Amino acid sequence: MRNAIVTLLTDFGTRDHYVASMKGVILRINPRCTLVDITHHISPHNIKEGAFVLNSAFSSFPKGTIHLSVVDPGVGGPRRPLLFVTSDYFFIGPDNGLFTLILRREKVKAVVALNNFKFFLSKVSTTFHGRDLFAPVAAYLSLGVKPERFGNRVDSWVEIPFQQPVKKEKSMVGEIFHVDTFGNLISNIDGERLLRFTRDRPFVVRLGKRAIHSLRKGYWEGRRNEVIALIGSGGYLEVSVREDNAKKVLKAKEGDKVEIVLGTT
Amino acid sequence: MRNAIVTLLTDFGTRDHYVASMKGVILRINPRCTLVDITHHISPHNIKEGAFVLNSAFSSFPKGTIHLSVVDPGVGGPRRPLLFVTSDYFFIGPDNGLFTLILRREKVKAVVALNNFKFFLSKVSTTFHGRDLFAPVAAYLSLGVKPERFGNRVDSWVEIPFQQPVKKEKSMVGEIFHVDTFGNLISNIDGERLLRFTRDRPFVVRLGKRAIHSLRKGYWEGRRNEVIALIGSGGYLEVSVREDNAKKVLKAKEGDKVEIVLGTT
Amino acid sequence: MRNAIVTLLTDFGTRDHYVASMKGVILRINPRCTLVDITHHISPHNIKEGAFVLNSAFSSFPKGTIHLSVVDPGVGGPRRPLLFVTSDYFFIGPDNGLFTLILRREKVKAVVALNNFKFFLSKVSTTFHGRDLFAPVAAYLSLGVKPERFGNRVDSWVEIPFQQPVKKEKSMVGEIFHVDTFGNLISNIDGERLLRFTRDRPFVVRLGKRAIHSLRKGYWEGRRNEVIALIGSGGYLEVSVREDNAKKVLKAKEGDKVEIVLGTT
Repeated sequence: MRNAIVTLLTDFGTRDHYVASMKGVILRINPRCTLVDITHHISPHNIKEGAFVLNSAFSSFPKGTIHLSVVDPGVGGPRRPLLFVTSDYFFIGPDNGLFTLILRREKVKAVVALNNFKFFLSKVSTTFHGRDLFAPVAAYLSLGVKPERFGNRVDSWVEIPFQQPVKKEKSMVGEIFHVDTFGNLISNIDGERLLRFTRDRPFVVRLGKRAIHSLRKGYWEGRRNEVIALIGSGGYLEVSVREDNAKKVLKAKEGDKVEIVLGTT
Repeated sequence: MRNAIVTLLTDFGTRDHYVASMKGVILRINPRCTLVDITHHISPHNIKEGAFVLNSAFSSFPKGTIHLSVVDPGVGGPRRPLLFVTSDYFFIGPDNGLFTLILRREKVKAVVALNNFKFFLSKVSTTFHGRDLFAPVAAYLSLGVKPERFGNRVDSWVEIPFQQPVKKEKSMVGEIFHVDTFGNLISNIDGERLLRFTRDRPFVVRLGKRAIHSLRKGYWEGRRNEVIALIGSGGYLEVSVREDNAKKVLKAKEGDKVEIVLGTT
Repeated sequence: MRNAIVTLLTDFGTRDHYVASMKGVILRINPRCTLVDITHHISPHNIKEGAFVLNSAFSSFPKGTIHLSVVDPGVGGPRRPLLFVTSDYFFIGPDNGLFTLILRREKVKAVVALNNFKFFLSKVSTTFHGRDLFAPVAAYLSLGVKPERFGNRVDSWVEIPFQQPVKKEKSMVGEIFHVDTFGNLISNIDGERLLRFTRDRPFVVRLGKRAIHSLRKGYWEGRRNEVIALIGSGGYLEVSVREDNAKKVLKAKEGDKVEIVLGTT
């Protein structure tokens, strides 16, 4: 049998001991587990950003991967710790909407509220469930413990609202959803939605005072320093500056409006 | 036999090749070794910070784990390279106090000065013992080479002073010892010491001009943006602001005084 | 058989999903692969910096290691994806000069243009060949697929110019090539070249207005805050300030001139 894979996504940063403590706990329970970091640089307490990055990464992993995700401003409070079992993966984390985007794509087979203390560390702090509760559950799951043994099945969970693009008669209005390391401005308008709306008619992408007149196939198609629009690797409309940082060049930020306007101006 | 685990803690950062070079050397000697990063973002040459983070993380790992820690401003100089064998773990690194906090908690069984060149790379630089000396020793140890083969046993080593809280008649004075990624202010007053001092009497936590009138159980107990005190996941008194950054809100920093004052004002 | 090792070097940063997506794809194809990060913090699109860090790290790894390196401003454009087979290693990445320094040191046995779609993800984006093309090729290679199956052999590839030190009658002029995490200023003058030029004659190292009168053996030889010169762990002349940051103290940066002047002033 091949070793189980556990991924980790948190807002813990990499300067402190937090991530290492979680990994130590997992390896104490299952020393053969393969650990893969998704990221630990989600902005502190930013559940939406965590949801976006997790949604962009999870499906690249093998079936059966356990995705352990902890962005958890309500740690120790009444929010429940949950395990989602989907057709292809397991997701473990707090019930605060972190899994909202995933649950739109994955078929949910069961959701379990983690309340069987037997699978926690013997002393659970109120401030670090990542180490004391989520990590050991992920580790026991990676050893083959059945999901239903970790607690009771539940039928509802928290989802958070994600702004959807608004379709008007002659335009569609979305927003910048994520700014990546390169300064690429990733919108909430997905490529398929865009195609359905424009149906081969000409259109302009508007961001602030900029008007971009066509979609490119890739970054290299632009001239150096040209502002371009394209469908990025995650499937979303993205505004980019070739070999430069669109966030800085365009002084744009998350939440800024991105508009698709039919016509040529 | 399960694979050995080697953790790495350094001040090397992750932009350069330094950490990868150490890992390459370890894998060349023991390709089956499991490598886990604790952190590489200790502030350059800050031995105290390295000691704190290592002390917070090491005990989460399985027995037998080899903790390789290199914060080493005196590299290539007269400071000795050491191997500490404790009841549960191995610690490898420079003799400069980096292991001070650990040695207060772990039972030391043997300390070895690493001077058997046979286990070093064939050419040892004067500037990068992490790669040329510490990494290969960790790798050979992970293969089962006996500690005494790496050099001579020694009876003394360097420790560095860590400020302890000072107990007065009506108060106890500690200091901010570490500021974490979230801006939480972690003091040197541990929870047990606090309980022994206050013995159920009312007390106030003072930090600068702030007076905090009770301990919370966890972050979630505060109102949003409220300044709270609690015993954190590492067992120390911590000042925090719910869903915000206490360091920024309170303009506090490492070394700032934290006082426990008996009474209600 | 021991597990294959794949290293990763990119300019993707660690905040986004990009690196995790590559790792997920590799593990989907070869779940037993050992993944090691070299760095993901190459400055965006900086091929030279990528070449330098890769060159500093690759030879520490075991023979047979697959080095997957993606600094790729021309992704999706006409630049070819390549696989270099050398005596000891495999290198996979874009044909843009990223491997220039390595090819001066390694014996090249074959170079393959990656054009066999069979080994790519079924849908290859134009913006993320790291995930869709390079990662799966690395994974299949780690499973033992023969290099020639990935595409056609080629005889030429892109190299980028690296400034070499210029030898004059009484001096040699080089430049700062890399500034590391500690602020050490690493030049393009290698130690052997320096020795051949100076042949035991006295010399001064000049950087801006500073004149440094001798080489030290290691950082610890300097007084605290003294500006020193030494041959660093990568074999290059380096200017450093003991227990401080030479970049800040000397206000130096990449590209600044470093001069070796024969004589004593």
